[in-house]
Amino acid sequence: MSKQLHVAVVGATGAVGTEMLNCLEQRDFPVAKITLLASSRSAGKRLPFRGEEVEVQELTPESFEGVDIALFSAGSGISKEFGPHAVKAGAVVIDNSSAFRMDEGVPLVVPEVNPDDAKSHQGIIANPNCTTIVTLVGLNPLHQAFGGVRNIIASSYQAVSGSGAQGMQELEQQVAALVEGSPIEKNVYPHQIAFNVIPHVDVFQDNGYTKEEMKMHYEGRKILHAPELTASVTCVRVPVYRSHAVAITAEFNNACSVEAAREAIEAAPGVQLVDDRMTALYPTPLDATHGDDCLVGRIRQDLVFENGLTFWVVGDQVRKGAALNAVQIAELL
Amino acid sequence: MSKQLHVAVVGATGAVGTEMLNCLEQRDFPVAKITLLASSRSAGKRLPFRGEEVEVQELTPESFEGVDIALFSAGSGISKEFGPHAVKAGAVVIDNSSAFRMDEGVPLVVPEVNPDDAKSHQGIIANPNCTTIVTLVGLNPLHQAFGGVRNIIASSYQAVSGSGAQGMQELEQQVAALVEGSPIEKNVYPHQIAFNVIPHVDVFQDNGYTKEEMKMHYEGRKILHAPELTASVTCVRVPVYRSHAVAITAEFNNACSVEAAREAIEAAPGVQLVDDRMTALYPTPLDATHGDDCLVGRIRQDLVFENGLTFWVVGDQVRKGAALNAVQIAELL
Repeated sequence: MSKQLHVAVVGATGAVGTEMLNCLEQRDFPVAKITLLASSRSAGKRLPFRGEEVEVQELTPESFEGVDIALFSAGSGISKEFGPHAVKAGAVVIDNSSAFRMDEGVPLVVPEVNPDDAKSHQGIIANPNCTTIVTLVGLNPLHQAFGGVRNIIASSYQAVSGSGAQGMQELEQQVAALVEGSPIEKNVYPHQIAFNVIPHVDVFQDNGYTKEEMKMHYEGRKILHAPELTASVTCVRVPVYRSHAVAITAEFNNACSVEAAREAIEAAPGVQLVDDRMTALYPTPLDATHGDDCLVGRIRQDLVFENGLTFWVVGDQVRKGAALNAVQIAELL
Repeated sequence: MSKQLHVAVVGATGAVGTEMLNCLEQRDFPVAKITLLASSRSAGKRLPFRGEEVEVQELTPESFEGVDIALFSAGSGISKEFGPHAVKAGAVVIDNSSAFRMDEGVPLVVPEVNPDDAKSHQGIIANPNCTTIVTLVGLNPLHQAFGGVRNIIASSYQAVSGSGAQGMQELEQQVAALVEGSPIEKNVYPHQIAFNVIPHVDVFQDNGYTKEEMKMHYEGRKILHAPELTASVTCVRVPVYRSHAVAITAEFNNACSVEAAREAIEAAPGVQLVDDRMTALYPTPLDATHGDDCLVGRIRQDLVFENGLTFWVVGDQVRKGAALNAVQIAELL
């Protein structure tokens, strides 16, 4: 990839946006020019990129003049409003929101899983949900090894960084208040998140599952090319700053074994096996934080499903679950 | 229950022991005399009971002279060594450890689930594992309503109080150290627990599950009288001080519905329905803390199992998961 590109980052001042800049820099992405875009509130701020300070500009429909790749991470509303302007200006949009994920003609891509899907884009490529990415990077090697995954039952342990910088601030402020003995404030979450867990991520659907929980089901089907896949998920916010963990039980079409699963994980890109019960070795969210790879441990033959495995995946949700995955998609182009 | 009893509490100074004293007091248990027992290290300490200070005595084989009921909560080793002495002295032992739970002839009792089993004791009645108690208080009404539970897939969110007072201290000290920027100490858990989660409770077994995870399987079979039940569980420690939460997917023998499940929960003892997705109502660990009841929410038709429900239970693990359940067993006698 020798062509130098003009890259725009929409939502540059957010938790994912700033991590996108880190990823572009660390991975030596061929950036000829960087344009940082955000709301009028953040315009004028300066962010470091490759040793220089770059001024953030206000996002307008005209912001995408000459842009080759536009990385969006500013919420669904912004993506729906400004994504088409970027496409019209000739940019390829890589969108981190849920705005276009399930649209026909919009590839939904995890580069380690379905890189070829990116080729068929019509101007927009969607970045999957963070919990879905972390789960699938761990699950896909097993999906490939054991004739396809049929059912997933999973519970998540999701960090507050999934709610952006505000989520991290809320946890920090609540902990400080509780340590001091002063009353806590709740702005981001409907319940106290410090020293508590909340079984509620994103809005509730008619079937009683949240939108976040159903993303694993619908996005999983699309990414794995597994239209028969069923996923029953419980998404839970936990008082962890960064990196999501997921406890997964998966049923496959073919027989499976722990030994073959370990080999499949070890041979796969973007994922590391961290699993030795003799030495109490398994990954925790802190181990994955700021890393590119998802970490898999606690692989065991499931007791309920004959062709089943139960295991544990962790991944940095800001990085692999969002920013890095988007930059990796850009690299595929 | 008018007879006044001589009650001994073994492990009186621990987190569960002191909660046992609270439960005896609050529930007006007919205590004629209380004997507090602990290791030589704790002997001489004084604990409040019904407005008086009671001195803790060193546990010896002779401690149970005249004792009617001995509540043990000092670990398996102590139960195995001293439980038989208590029985020999004529006491009924209610043991919170795992020492005798799976022994034939030792009833394993959750009073809301299998009270009649307590009658057949031969001197020892076992108190189940805390996560198992919380799960079964929520699950049993559905087990009764839908022809028996066949399979359970569950993930836990377990508070540090499950490791006793030391677990709570370790979380508190790590949080204080991190807030100050000083290095953390790890004594109770093999990894940092503050702002992290650890998929490891109790020791690993040959099948890759931990002992804690297999307790739900074996103890569940015994308590529910369901020898065919299979439970596949992932137990995870979370930075919550008190109360365990469990995300449960259960498959039943008969057809089930959310409406019938809600009715069954509402009619059952020891459990409250806290479930209204329209108002984002569901229980969190903080809501259950210091309460007697387990709280059930997020009941939804499972997507994987035709006769399945997925739901969420929380319960105060020190109280209902241990101390209260033991005192309730004593009340059955």
